[in-house]
Amino acid sequence: MSLLSKQVAHYLERASWIRKMFESGNELKQKYGAENVFDFSLGNPDLPPPAEIKSAMKDLAGRLEQPMSLGYMPNAGLPSARKALAEYLSREQKIRLEASDVIITCGAAGGLNALFRAVFEAGDEVVCPAPYFVEYGFYAENFQGRLVPVKSRPLTFELDLDAIEEAVNSKTRVVLINSPNNPSGRVYSADELKVLIDIIEKKNQELGRPIFLVVDEPYRFLTYDEISVPSLMAMYDHTIVVSSFSKSLSMAGERVGYVAVSPKIPDNQELLNGITLTNRILGFVNAPVIGQILMEKAINVTVDTNIYVQRREAMADVLDQAGIEFSMPGGGFYFFPRAPGGDDQAFTRSLFEENVLAVPGTGFGYPGYVRLAFCVSRDTIDRSGPAIKRAVQRM
Amino acid sequence: MSLLSKQVAHYLERASWIRKMFESGNELKQKYGAENVFDFSLGNPDLPPPAEIKSAMKDLAGRLEQPMSLGYMPNAGLPSARKALAEYLSREQKIRLEASDVIITCGAAGGLNALFRAVFEAGDEVVCPAPYFVEYGFYAENFQGRLVPVKSRPLTFELDLDAIEEAVNSKTRVVLINSPNNPSGRVYSADELKVLIDIIEKKNQELGRPIFLVVDEPYRFLTYDEISVPSLMAMYDHTIVVSSFSKSLSMAGERVGYVAVSPKIPDNQELLNGITLTNRILGFVNAPVIGQILMEKAINVTVDTNIYVQRREAMADVLDQAGIEFSMPGGGFYFFPRAPGGDDQAFTRSLFEENVLAVPGTGFGYPGYVRLAFCVSRDTIDRSGPAIKRAVQRM
Repeated sequence: MSLLSKQVAHYLERASWIRKMFESGNELKQKYGAENVFDFSLGNPDLPPPAEIKSAMKDLAGRLEQPMSLGYMPNAGLPSARKALAEYLSREQKIRLEASDVIITCGAAGGLNALFRAVFEAGDEVVCPAPYFVEYGFYAENFQGRLVPVKSRPLTFELDLDAIEEAVNSKTRVVLINSPNNPSGRVYSADELKVLIDIIEKKNQELGRPIFLVVDEPYRFLTYDEISVPSLMAMYDHTIVVSSFSKSLSMAGERVGYVAVSPKIPDNQELLNGITLTNRILGFVNAPVIGQILMEKAINVTVDTNIYVQRREAMADVLDQAGIEFSMPGGGFYFFPRAPGGDDQAFTRSLFEENVLAVPGTGFGYPGYVRLAFCVSRDTIDRSGPAIKRAVQRM
Repeated sequence: MSLLSKQVAHYLERASWIRKMFESGNELKQKYGAENVFDFSLGNPDLPPPAEIKSAMKDLAGRLEQPMSLGYMPNAGLPSARKALAEYLSREQKIRLEASDVIITCGAAGGLNALFRAVFEAGDEVVCPAPYFVEYGFYAENFQGRLVPVKSRPLTFELDLDAIEEAVNSKTRVVLINSPNNPSGRVYSADELKVLIDIIEKKNQELGRPIFLVVDEPYRFLTYDEISVPSLMAMYDHTIVVSSFSKSLSMAGERVGYVAVSPKIPDNQELLNGITLTNRILGFVNAPVIGQILMEKAINVTVDTNIYVQRREAMADVLDQAGIEFSMPGGGFYFFPRAPGGDDQAFTRSLFEENVLAVPGTGFGYPGYVRLAFCVSRDTIDRSGPAIKRAVQRM
């Protein structure tokens, strides 16, 4: 008999193929040498954190003798870090936020969990365009909610607004938008988001209560071709932005993100008190203090995004040369091309035979495509060309 | 209509007196100056972290240019930190643990949540001696479990083993022991724990499945009068140790703790895989990387415990002088004396009138007592004497 709950035992079973893939990838690296394996499977930023992070850390090391230098703080975060974050978000979201409108969290993942814990009743639903970050489903189920994915249009990943309208119902508590999208790289346009908001507002009137529009945008700092990410707080009152500094400051392991609740939500302080409480009782207590201090000092800088610009071009060339169909990502560091022949798992295996690691789109609720992360060196991208070409030819 | 779930809205309502107390305390400090308020209400260690933390942080700052220096890692933690932790716990628990038996978590609070998420079915119960750390109840309810507190004996806080035997039933999934106890300071003896284990083992046989003995011991490093904390992994097979470095390294805000699963549990790796998964999907992902690196370097040192030895004596003198009844704490940095007259909330108010901040025992499931945290300066303790005396006289 398993010592785990039925649900978690089932999760483990379902996830076993991911673990196997990861282990097989490691075996490949041991067999052929890491430099001969083209690993596009992980979204772990390889760029060093900006210089501001280093100097902030040195400063902090010099101040550790001060009492409670690394101690508890108010559960919502260091007051100075919250203030800096509110100023940053006021510029980004084009409405005025105060420190009291934001909570610093253990990454966006921690923020989404704290939010769902605070607002869900059993059976509540989260409508989310697919492809989507697979963890969303777990976050909802942690608190007896349910993710309802709605497939976006093939290859372009435009929102299928008719299908979304059909999916939104009286159980819908949240519509969750991830833009730039992981894995598709799509940045949803202001035009399609306006229609989405019309749909939500119509539904709100029917239901007599507001649906939250939750926006997860950790790749907002990284868009291409002058594409900009619309500021949803300025477009819809019940907007909550959940995001993180994992990618922009290359400190994904330190776990610093936030939940920002629109001040246009009537009585938004009750909601913020609730999320502050659930952030505490879920065991986060507060976001890691060192990460908060570093984030505050580096909030207005990012890693060198030009490097990603060049890698994106290089990766597009590799895919073009191999005759693979894809949409150019508008942001983030992923390509989500169509699997030649249409079977993403077969294509992933074929890539694997050529020492190329990718993740099948099935893992993102979107079969027929594969995800290639380009947070790897330019050299790895360039050298992968012939291998990817061979993998396509074998299909 | 509240935007929060019914349960969380209710939590907020219930917790409002704590918030009010905290706010009133801050008002006192603004009015009379912080040095004229004797704040014994918070368990936030005031000692600086050991020198090893500082040197480890400086080292790290010099290595940030390395790729992925602050990046994601395996969800269970940095392999080298897990290895160091397993060695440390092998000495402490008197059985051999490997790196694969431990998961580094976001404090003990994060560890308990990940554990409960991994094993609970709806309605599962956690039996726990009172007084108890009030957050335990929330952790259980996060995942549809329920805390069942069992009052320990008055003033000595010895386990009431008959009452525990009565409380353990077919719904009991976990017996949770916090030793040294927050708030009572009690270190449970090997003798009473042996009887407790006999009770659990008898029940296991009846039920045909094992109850977990979960031990939360962040104050283990801080005991007095040569009292030692029994090593429960050597005493009961299904033991899980959940703890943190928040107090021993004075870095409560950085959130580094662990879950250690006894290798004597048959198939303990399935349980560890489950907790690693729930640690990820609850949004912790991994414990903060900087904290992990610092912990690994400082794992064999602690803050200067002699300071707490002296403060404990001073606080005992103050309470003696005021004619307050108490048991000397065997560990930790709290006194949990009897409220003169027996009404903890009235006594807390009386203390407040004298600018002394304490927490009523009602908040720990044990009315009639108050908690005084002595992680404050020796000077604060000494100067509080006359005020505490006056507060008692007024009762």
